[in-house]
Amino acid sequence: MVVVLVRCHVKPGCEEAFAAASVENAKASNREAGVLRFDFYREEDPTRFVLLEAYRDEEGPRAHKASAHYARWRDTVEPLLAEERTRERFEGVYVPERHLGC
Amino acid sequence: MVVVLVRCHVKPGCEEAFAAASVENAKASNREAGVLRFDFYREEDPTRFVLLEAYRDEEGPRAHKASAHYARWRDTVEPLLAEERTRERFEGVYVPERHLGC
Repeated sequence: MVVVLVRCHVKPGCEEAFAAASVENAKASNREAGVLRFDFYREEDPTRFVLLEAYRDEEGPRAHKASAHYARWRDTVEPLLAEERTRERFEGVYVPERHLGC
Repeated sequence: MVVVLVRCHVKPGCEEAFAAASVENAKASNREAGVLRFDFYREEDPTRFVLLEAYRDEEGPRAHKASAHYARWRDTVEPLLAEERTRERFEGVYVPERHLGC
């Protein structure tokens, strides 16, 4: 499994617009076949956010970046960012696909 | 929702023992009532690992730290660490509880 952690730092005043676009993107991304799950977090600094993306395999990130919702998110948030977003990549060693209560 | 990201840097040669203890801890943690999910990742540097813990609310981390499996994990990994583990905390803005395929 491939896990990607993206950090976004937005300009003051752009928090709500960024959050709205990112929740919409997360909802659509969770419907992708290659996505195990796609979360959206806020840091203690309210202008800093995190996207946590877990994919089944290497094809997952490629399919995500080719999606219409990703393009819409990227274009919407570009002018809201205070600096370029950063990206870390992990190997998912233990990532339960579904909550055990399912 | 409360999200905690823990980073652990282990001594060379301790990777497999650390991973085994951490997978066991993640499996047990996913059965806690207050845990939405508990993942375990490896960074590109094979001595560096990440625990990604998503809880329903503030009570979740407290219940986790009071569990027998947490105490066992903490005591097992303590001598394997190259340095003290670090911890970041996020607010979960959008954290789907279950994969939509459920």
